[in-house]
Parts: sequence; structure tokens; C-alpha cells
Amino acid sequence: MKNYRLSISYDGTRYNGWQRQATTNNTICGKLEDILEKMCDTHIDIIGSGRTDAGVHAYNQIANFHCETTYSPREIQDYFNEYLPQDIRILNVDIASDRFHARYNASKKTYVYRIDNQSVLDTFNRKYAYKIDTPLDIAIMKEASALLIGSHDFKSFCPSRKTKKSTVREIYSIEFVDNNDILEIHYTGNGFLYNMVRILTGTLIEVGLGNIPPQEIINIINAENREVAGPTAPPHGLFLKNVTY
Amino acid sequence: MKNYRLSISYDGTRYNGWQRQATTNNTICGKLEDILEKMCDTHIDIIGSGRTDAGVHAYNQIANFHCETTYSPREIQDYFNEYLPQDIRILNVDIASDRFHARYNASKKTYVYRIDNQSVLDTFNRKYAYKIDTPLDIAIMKEASALLIGSHDFKSFCPSRKTKKSTVREIYSIEFVDNNDILEIHYTGNGFLYNMVRILTGTLIEVGLGNIPPQEIINIINAENREVAGPTAPPHGLFLKNVTY
Repeated sequence: MKNYRLSISYDGTRYNGWQRQATTNNTICGKLEDILEKMCDTHIDIIGSGRTDAGVHAYNQIANFHCETTYSPREIQDYFNEYLPQDIRILNVDIASDRFHARYNASKKTYVYRIDNQSVLDTFNRKYAYKIDTPLDIAIMKEASALLIGSHDFKSFCPSRKTKKSTVREIYSIEFVDNNDILEIHYTGNGFLYNMVRILTGTLIEVGLGNIPPQEIINIINAENREVAGPTAPPHGLFLKNVTY
Repeated sequence: MKNYRLSISYDGTRYNGWQRQATTNNTICGKLEDILEKMCDTHIDIIGSGRTDAGVHAYNQIANFHCETTYSPREIQDYFNEYLPQDIRILNVDIASDRFHARYNASKKTYVYRIDNQSVLDTFNRKYAYKIDTPLDIAIMKEASALLIGSHDFKSFCPSRKTKKSTVREIYSIEFVDNNDILEIHYTGNGFLYNMVRILTGTLIEVGLGNIPPQEIINIINAENREVAGPTAPPHGLFLKNVTY
């Protein structure tokens, strides 16, 4: 049995997220596992670096699976790409060490949230950026983002759930990039809670609109209460950019 | 009667091109004229800077129309954007001089042809770039493109038709730009014949693939024969970028 590592890019528009669900087959992982089953004549689980929500995209998601096959990595890539729809693409396949686990071994992730803050909707980005009509004050958004850097309990930035799992995460950097007039916020950290990047972004947008003073970020973190942070920004602006091991 | 000038962006994927047709209402100009008719209670012709083919996009098409209305330019813009689908957006409306004519007065146009030459299809550009699997030699494409600059009879670069209209045009520049790993070819000239940018691109791609030597461009121009140039590149990679008056 070899352990294969996949790099995957997907346009999440049409899908119910990464994770296979009992109620629908319309997930990225489900599509991949169906093709792998066709290739190997048996069901094999694919392990992603993490789940992406319904409607969220990935430039480069990482996953792995164990199987016995005579196909070369390049042939596995071609097999997937032949049967996958064009909105899911396998960028690379290689053989990983036996112990490689796409979720447990991930040490760093970067997510990008894309905002269209132009005066008129950029039609070519209508599915790939969140349109905000009011001009954002990026300088104060940067000021607020600096307060999020470091190791914090991000309980305020994830939906309230009765769980004993730690909500402490470390954010290494938050960068603001102008990419062809789309404002991109690049978040890098050791991991992100469910909905965390979208809530961080929704909160930074409130800061940029002048509805939350930047220093208030400290109080929001300390409150450990989802209700004090900003709204959850919509999924179609969010991209998993890369995963480091 | 005032003369209004429109700046329009559109995703051409769903449309049968710019020009209104008797057989279909599914054109950009047709959509705009329908809304203008609703606004003014009478049919008014909209004049575009030029026709774009079915499936071709525009970052900034220019058009004009004459009408009598109490709406301000900003109100006209908002009216259009309220009723238009999201894949057509009015970027700006202003009042032009009475004599301004979007087609006759255009002195310069820039078209961009976008090519995805990455090893795996870039899913986010699948509708906005032409995927070429074989690596292109961009250096020799540039060498060939230099021979196209200037005033030439571009008869070889448009479909053969029995017309006495001049096929002489002047190309001012052809630039190669790497935009987020998409190869963009920016063509600027005093005007372009029907299909000309797509045939120029199809020919440059043949050069980049090694199928046509770059110097051969001179012979292709001199032949004044559509059959000696390369194929017509598909419409979904083409964008009208801007028009100068």
C-alpha cells in the first residue's frame, strides 16, 4: 500500500463543501472518492487537510489516501482529471511517506478572503469576491488586523458550540494585497476554527466601515463570545490558498 | 436631446455578441436597448464602439445614445444596473458632446487575449482564458508579434468576404503580460477587422508551438489570404479592454 498525496484546486460554487456527507453526494471529497473507487474497484477514504464550507474555493487543498495500484502518480492525476468536472482539478499527485496525514501533519495554512470594493460590481469576480459598496478604510483594517496576530483564544470568532476542544489558535500574519483591484486579505496561521476566517473578515469589514473601532478587537477577543464579533462574511469570497507540512 | 456616453463591462459567456440581431434578443446591445426602452417609453438605438463576437467579453466597451430624459447620468447608470443581469454592468454614464459617435470617433482600441498555459487547467479562468496544454515559447511569439506592428493590409487575418472595404489597419503595439500565471497578449491599434484579434492570436500560438517560424509572419501578411494564417482562437479568451477617442 502506498500513501498518495494530492494537490487539488476547486471552484466551490456548485458544491456543498469539502466533506463527504451522508445526505448528499455533492461534495468535493465525495466526487474524488467516487473516481478513486472506480479506479481501485473499492471504496477508499480521502483525508483532506481540513474541511472547506459549502461555496468556499481552494487554490491548493492537500489530501492523502492509501491504496494499492499499478498506476504511476502521473497516471493517477490524469485519471482523476479525465473524470472530474472542470471545476475540480488535480494539480499534482506524488507518493508521500507512509505516515503522512493531510490533516494531522498540517503545520500552517493560508486562506485568502477576496473583497470587491470597486464602485460597480466587477462582473468577472462576481462569484469569486464579496462585493462591498461602501468604500472601506483599509488603513484602519490593517491596524485592527495587527491586534489579531499571535496566539489567542478565538472563541469569539467561531459559532458557539458545546465542545471541550481548544479554541486557541495562532495567527502568524494577515496581509492586505491589491490584486487587479480586488482587495485580498491573506491569513496565515497554524490552523483555523470552523467559520473563523469568514468571521474575522466580517469583523474587519465592520472596522473598515467605521462600525467597530480598531482597538475594540482586543475586547472582542477577550469576550470569548461569538455575539460580539462581526457577521460571517459569505463563502464565495474565501479561498484555501495553501497548506504547509 | 442629450447624447449619453456609456462605459460597459460584460461577461460575454451567455450572449450572442454585442450587436442586436433580428433572430435573437440575446445580445448585449439588445439587453441594453430593452432597458432604455423601458426607461424612455420608446425604442432608442445604442451605438457601440464596435461589435464583439458571441462569447467575447469586455472590460470597458464604449457606447452612446441620444435621448430626452430628466434622469441624471448617475440615475441612468443606477437604472441600467438595477435591471441588467449581473454579467452586464454599466461602469459609467456621462453626457458627451452632440457630435460624439462611439464607432466613428474611436481612434484606438486595446484588446486582450488571455491564454492559460499552465500544466493543469486553472479552474477559475476556465471561462476567461484559452487553455493550451503544450508549453508555448513566448520569446519567439514576441519576435513574431514585432513583425505585425505597423500599418499593413491584414486581409490574411480576417475571414474571406467579397467586400471592397479596406482591410488595412495599423497595430501600434502587442504586449505580453503575465497576470497571475495567465499569459495575456495586449493588442493596441487604430481598429481591428472581424475576427482579426482571434486570428492574430491563433497564428501567434502556432508560432509559440513551433509550427510556424516567426519570420513567416511577413509572408502570411503578404499573401493576403486567410488560408495561410493560423486558426481562429476561441472567443472566451478575448476581452475588449478599452477604446480611446
